[in-house]
Amino acid sequence: MQRGALRQMSAGDQVLLVHEDQKTFLVELTPGRTFSTHKGAVAHDKLIGQPYGTQIVNSAGAPVFALRPIWVERMMKVDRRTNIMYPKDVAYLLARLGLGAGDRVVELGSGSGAMTMALAHAVRPGGRIYSYDRREDFLELAARNCARAGVGEDEVEFRLRIDGEDLEPEVDAVTCDIPEPWQEMGAAHAALVGSGRFAAATPTFNQAERVAACLAGGGFAMVQTTEVLVREILARPGRTRPAHRMVGHTQILTTAVKVFAQQPDESPEPQ
Amino acid sequence: MQRGALRQMSAGDQVLLVHEDQKTFLVELTPGRTFSTHKGAVAHDKLIGQPYGTQIVNSAGAPVFALRPIWVERMMKVDRRTNIMYPKDVAYLLARLGLGAGDRVVELGSGSGAMTMALAHAVRPGGRIYSYDRREDFLELAARNCARAGVGEDEVEFRLRIDGEDLEPEVDAVTCDIPEPWQEMGAAHAALVGSGRFAAATPTFNQAERVAACLAGGGFAMVQTTEVLVREILARPGRTRPAHRMVGHTQILTTAVKVFAQQPDESPEPQ
Amino acid sequence: MQRGALRQMSAGDQVLLVHEDQKTFLVELTPGRTFSTHKGAVAHDKLIGQPYGTQIVNSAGAPVFALRPIWVERMMKVDRRTNIMYPKDVAYLLARLGLGAGDRVVELGSGSGAMTMALAHAVRPGGRIYSYDRREDFLELAARNCARAGVGEDEVEFRLRIDGEDLEPEVDAVTCDIPEPWQEMGAAHAALVGSGRFAAATPTFNQAERVAACLAGGGFAMVQTTEVLVREILARPGRTRPAHRMVGHTQILTTAVKVFAQQPDESPEPQ
Amino acid sequence: MQRGALRQMSAGDQVLLVHEDQKTFLVELTPGRTFSTHKGAVAHDKLIGQPYGTQIVNSAGAPVFALRPIWVERMMKVDRRTNIMYPKDVAYLLARLGLGAGDRVVELGSGSGAMTMALAHAVRPGGRIYSYDRREDFLELAARNCARAGVGEDEVEFRLRIDGEDLEPEVDAVTCDIPEPWQEMGAAHAALVGSGRFAAATPTFNQAERVAACLAGGGFAMVQTTEVLVREILARPGRTRPAHRMVGHTQILTTAVKVFAQQPDESPEPQ
Repeated sequence: MQRGALRQMSAGDQVLLVHEDQKTFLVELTPGRTFSTHKGAVAHDKLIGQPYGTQIVNSAGAPVFALRPIWVERMMKVDRRTNIMYPKDVAYLLARLGLGAGDRVVELGSGSGAMTMALAHAVRPGGRIYSYDRREDFLELAARNCARAGVGEDEVEFRLRIDGEDLEPEVDAVTCDIPEPWQEMGAAHAALVGSGRFAAATPTFNQAERVAACLAGGGFAMVQTTEVLVREILARPGRTRPAHRMVGHTQILTTAVKVFAQQPDESPEPQ
Repeated sequence: MQRGALRQMSAGDQVLLVHEDQKTFLVELTPGRTFSTHKGAVAHDKLIGQPYGTQIVNSAGAPVFALRPIWVERMMKVDRRTNIMYPKDVAYLLARLGLGAGDRVVELGSGSGAMTMALAHAVRPGGRIYSYDRREDFLELAARNCARAGVGEDEVEFRLRIDGEDLEPEVDAVTCDIPEPWQEMGAAHAALVGSGRFAAATPTFNQAERVAACLAGGGFAMVQTTEVLVREILARPGRTRPAHRMVGHTQILTTAVKVFAQQPDESPEPQ
Repeated sequence: MQRGALRQMSAGDQVLLVHEDQKTFLVELTPGRTFSTHKGAVAHDKLIGQPYGTQIVNSAGAPVFALRPIWVERMMKVDRRTNIMYPKDVAYLLARLGLGAGDRVVELGSGSGAMTMALAHAVRPGGRIYSYDRREDFLELAARNCARAGVGEDEVEFRLRIDGEDLEPEVDAVTCDIPEPWQEMGAAHAALVGSGRFAAATPTFNQAERVAACLAGGGFAMVQTTEVLVREILARPGRTRPAHRMVGHTQILTTAVKVFAQQPDESPEPQ
Repeated sequence: MQRGALRQMSAGDQVLLVHEDQKTFLVELTPGRTFSTHKGAVAHDKLIGQPYGTQIVNSAGAPVFALRPIWVERMMKVDRRTNIMYPKDVAYLLARLGLGAGDRVVELGSGSGAMTMALAHAVRPGGRIYSYDRREDFLELAARNCARAGVGEDEVEFRLRIDGEDLEPEVDAVTCDIPEPWQEMGAAHAALVGSGRFAAATPTFNQAERVAACLAGGGFAMVQTTEVLVREILARPGRTRPAHRMVGHTQILTTAVKVFAQQPDESPEPQ
């Protein structure tokens, strides 16, 4: 019942409206309101009470699909004042970090909060994101974007990053989307549990080179640098081909695992 | 305390041992046993009781890192009798499906169970995977691989796929890793909740073309076909370059969302 | 002397003017004329008599480079009414065809003449291109573009393609940039010398699949299908990265070599 | 007649033998000799006098194609003691350099002579390659490989590179396949005619970054850095897909054009 009830669109829900041309719009359903573009209008009341997935017809006679948004779609709709991480990169990093329910994560560089939302989703329920930024305005923007996406204060804690201060300790993962991640290596290592995972996204090869060198020399194993390319295929009967344009570059991803030398006094051999 | 206790390696744990050359081995810790390769040996007892992330020295004097394996590493270590999905593709599909805690998923094509493990991880806790295969031997192999990875019967239900039978109803997502996914489109559509997500992985462009055409014509919106390429970068001070070899192809990914036309009698307007 | 003389820009020469933003313009030098954009003007007379490679300053005080255009630059400047082959694909095909001075080539699909210019350049001196098209208007457009690029009637012969008619015989290579290259396989095979090279460029995988199948079954060996991707790298001190956008697809290239079974009566054994 | 006569295989010719599995062998036809692999044998006398393109049957009953090798195939068969340039990169560079019959080229880094052969082919007839190396043994190896490929002393001149010495002047292009191309920028600029083209191939991003910076600051325009990726497509009826493995990296290519500021005293205006 509960599941069924969740599948009706209700006032206050954020719904993804999809036009025939694949354009998508994230709309909060409000009784009496109308969603309009130059391609036609849809009264919110026509959606409220209908099941998710419903195809309706707008005022111009064109079909519109009303979908339940997933985190990938929400993160692409944030109010941006920074570059945001692309879903292809976020998806890959979440896998390489091995994140799951209950995990605790330090995020360095809240930015617009897009990655924060992805991290929060990945550690639900019971997990927690400690998201740091040096700029108060980014912390506020990220918090606002997260709140709008239903990511609450019980899930994410935004903190001003102050040089030299310790990060939240005993976390399962640390992510970096900051210009100089090498400055945070020591703090990241200290914050991570043993075998905790580290990830940095950097736009240039030079930054990736420096991050990798710092990781390799600073208590991390399995240092790997990769780039993820996604190519859209236009699959159409009898004339399938890749899309003419593609994103040639977003970020270079560097991941690693925290390790530490065995302490002599912790050694079990003498026992 | 609980978290700290979990961070000690215990007898019975599966531990990822990493050599200097980045080769990895998944080992179940057993008192009295020794893990040996031509690069040296490690007594399990040297690891039991130590924290995860410990770097020890093997009998040949070489460093070995003992890590807590994540699902990506576990899925690459399954006993394979089929091609398995690559992490790059699985990561992308998990994101495109929007999976999270509590979701219910139909998997068509259990294969070796590698994807099953990834799906089970993504819907923890409270979710459930219904994994179908036409071959009993694959169901058994997949179940064995899952059990070894700690994915239990409360998380995954393996079922023999019989033509014409309904799939588990009211699921949030359906995944296909089978040769002819178009044969399952109707059953998949029937099984999905409204706005539920569909994904198929197919090796050839011809299959992707046919899947996409069936989806577009059969009650699905947002049909997208993509390929994911991951390029390893050898990030080394002063001489950074991509790796000479790369994986040029694994699978083509097709995703879509279940939609349905509004039923006249369900329409709220006349009320 | 001769070489030196050629290196002065003269009235009537086509010169490539390059602005600071890398925008290029192909200009025919005419005494008394001025080349103007919103970025400033250059009097042709300031260039005539100067050596190629000269950097001058335009009326807005911005630097402009005057270069001798090469065929790649000329082909990108043709008056287009069709898609043209990209230099990356043309360069690869020229290599795979092994073209050199004196070679004779059949081109199927004159289009805008861009590929024709590249072929003509590759077989200079002494070679000859027989360029066919089914449309008179394309033949005229291609001839006009070639003439403008200095490719004369002694180098290229444009011919209307009429179904069923033989192609120019005894050619070293046949290229196809037409929608249904498989219809021309028999004619191409008949036209080629033994060990002559064949190349087709097609936008879709479906076409490439059909071309390759026809070649493999129709007297061709070494059938290979490839795609060429070129990624621009923004190489800048301390912040080198690929360009954000790239061309994700142009054409799929299929190449092959004409072979034939040994004729019994030609066999040298009985001798 | 001349053309027809050239199309017979003669004693002394180098012939490319192609097996069914696409393996290729470059064989010099010698009366009385036999070419043998574990897949069967072919008597050279069965080929001599036959036309190029002939398919014969070897001693094991398998088909073998006898083809006229093109420069791409010859360069892949050189006796290598260095990494050689890949055809994909060579093809792209030849196009970007705009090379044609009669051009004069300085090659820095003879290596095994593979690139030298490609350059010599591109400037035939009438052109000339000045190929420099710091190592006598490479000069000898390259000369031997070139001679075997029919590239003679009238086409290529091998020279020991001595620091500080001028390069051959007034050349149309300079290519670099050496570890530190930035050391040769000044000499390259001095050697090139105005609007002459420069190209460097370097394995790492760091080298490309440094080359590009030196070019941009040292009298070159249109500095471009690119990488070329070629993906093999297995085009087969109903099951077309990319090959699983691909070459992920060979070299990064940097090209530029020589320019120079207009000399006040050369200016034609006051006259």
